[in-house]
Amino acid sequence: MPEVRKDIVSGRWVITGTKNVDDFLSSLKPEEKDIKKCPFCPGNEQLTRPEIYALRENPTPANTPGWSLRVIPAITGFLKIEGNLYRRGVGMYDAMDNIGAHEIIVESAEHIKNISDLSTEQIKKVLNVYKERIIDLEKDKRLKYCLIFKNQRPKSSYRVGHTHSQLVGLSATPKAIKDELANARQYYGYKERCLFCDIVNQEKLDKKRIIEENNDYLAFVPYAARFAFETWVIPKIHNPDFSQEKESSLGNLAQILKNSLQRIVKFLNDPALTYAFHTMPYLRPRPGYWHTVQKDYHWHLEICPQVTEVSGFEWGSGFQIQPLVPETCAQLLRETTI
Amino acid sequence: MPEVRKDIVSGRWVITGTKNVDDFLSSLKPEEKDIKKCPFCPGNEQLTRPEIYALRENPTPANTPGWSLRVIPAITGFLKIEGNLYRRGVGMYDAMDNIGAHEIIVESAEHIKNISDLSTEQIKKVLNVYKERIIDLEKDKRLKYCLIFKNQRPKSSYRVGHTHSQLVGLSATPKAIKDELANARQYYGYKERCLFCDIVNQEKLDKKRIIEENNDYLAFVPYAARFAFETWVIPKIHNPDFSQEKESSLGNLAQILKNSLQRIVKFLNDPALTYAFHTMPYLRPRPGYWHTVQKDYHWHLEICPQVTEVSGFEWGSGFQIQPLVPETCAQLLRETTI
Repeated sequence: MPEVRKDIVSGRWVITGTKNVDDFLSSLKPEEKDIKKCPFCPGNEQLTRPEIYALRENPTPANTPGWSLRVIPAITGFLKIEGNLYRRGVGMYDAMDNIGAHEIIVESAEHIKNISDLSTEQIKKVLNVYKERIIDLEKDKRLKYCLIFKNQRPKSSYRVGHTHSQLVGLSATPKAIKDELANARQYYGYKERCLFCDIVNQEKLDKKRIIEENNDYLAFVPYAARFAFETWVIPKIHNPDFSQEKESSLGNLAQILKNSLQRIVKFLNDPALTYAFHTMPYLRPRPGYWHTVQKDYHWHLEICPQVTEVSGFEWGSGFQIQPLVPETCAQLLRETTI
Repeated sequence: MPEVRKDIVSGRWVITGTKNVDDFLSSLKPEEKDIKKCPFCPGNEQLTRPEIYALRENPTPANTPGWSLRVIPAITGFLKIEGNLYRRGVGMYDAMDNIGAHEIIVESAEHIKNISDLSTEQIKKVLNVYKERIIDLEKDKRLKYCLIFKNQRPKSSYRVGHTHSQLVGLSATPKAIKDELANARQYYGYKERCLFCDIVNQEKLDKKRIIEENNDYLAFVPYAARFAFETWVIPKIHNPDFSQEKESSLGNLAQILKNSLQRIVKFLNDPALTYAFHTMPYLRPRPGYWHTVQKDYHWHLEICPQVTEVSGFEWGSGFQIQPLVPETCAQLLRETTI
């Protein structure tokens, strides 16, 4: 029975016990599992749990072909949507039930591996569905945060090979986001300006870390990138909440996302990569805590190519080594023809 | 020219620009580099930089055979010991020069792969050298933290295959340690007890996460382990500073470290693993900041088997998934015959 536990030393939440020992040990074996029938292809809808949402041009029944984008519950079971949180102390420790949402967003009916090979129009639909799912899950008062992320071409042995992203609705705000909120709040307190708005201005002034820019968004390599060729996409106008991003700008977001990913795919020869939307937590009534979040936070997308191994030094310290100069990464990506 | 930059959003320090692009790209190719002549074996001392320290039973000249343990500067060059910190603002960002120490501790003259295959006596010598190097580097007032860590059987293509650990002396306290210090200080402020002393008591009470115990140390799987079979070794008596650990207890530490590693090596079939000593920062005069660190911090060793991949979800959130129940991991390790 999975359980969510708090690491009292680091402050991180950990979802434990999602597998039994035999399944875990067999997952370590190097051979690749052949996916004979892709569960995300049209015609195979019965291989997944019933759909939560689908885009259909013509009204065909749920869980049958005819969709161009489909949202389904994940089958991993590391989070479950039914039940109560049951937050509790266990001796000196803290635990709660693994309540949450875990959804798969199948981004296309076509069996295509990379999202950047979809049309801008289709990527815009994907972004719209991200927004809609975040807004829909806000109704569930047990959830504090909704994280949208993607693992593209993961190194693990289980690969579906059909482009999809994932959503998790969590009963605790993740530590990475809490740290960002705290730093952004501190910055705002000192400067009375949004940290991220200042980053946008600084990058436009320096120019050398910018990969691409359009009317609404900036794609750049962050000043202290943790990964080689790490790329952030950020709205140029202040907005703490991705789900409130205007419909009129989503086409530009789709375009800059497609281009940014294509550059990485081409330059690094289709590497494993992840991306994650860092957006503000759901605004739950917690007086005195969230009062500034809409002023001092600013959503952004972090794209992290996974080409180097994380070593003991990095795990032990949170001090990262990034082999390349960020300005060089930006130049190489900027000059990659796509 | 490497540079240390602060990620203003997460608060992490990142060492950037340690490789040029060509070296970086060729390091991504999968073929293993054959190490024809092990640079850590006696007789090959000329392949390393001149030694910083060596244990020799009989007085043989430096950088010649006759040693049983040898400390040398690393050749990676991601940190350099000469020069000034030159902390500076770069627009809104923060940077400093890559000042620091990076040393390799060759743990044995024999070409053995795993530290747990050394004798307890030899491991005790290794621990003593860790202590001495931490104490020696404290004299360098530019350094704020000394991290001792090991990458055993890393998945990367470059493997020496001769057991060694690494030391980095850093000009900033790593974020992972800062987070622990902050949580421990908060806990002490509330409870007036050391967080880690309470963990020792809780684990002794619960028993089910304990792997092994002796007079001075406890080896256990933490309540919210982030990795399957993660193991912590902690002194049962309060001590914030590993370098102040008593000579009389180091034999017991060597024994429990050897046993803990052997259990993991045997049960997981010699996996990639890392370990890192989490000890307090150097006490530099920073009035009002460190006044409680000796009361509220408590050194410990974190051993992390690296058998699963870190996914986009984990990078994006700091919310980890650990597939197994910690109590099950502890039982399996406890029952592994060594």
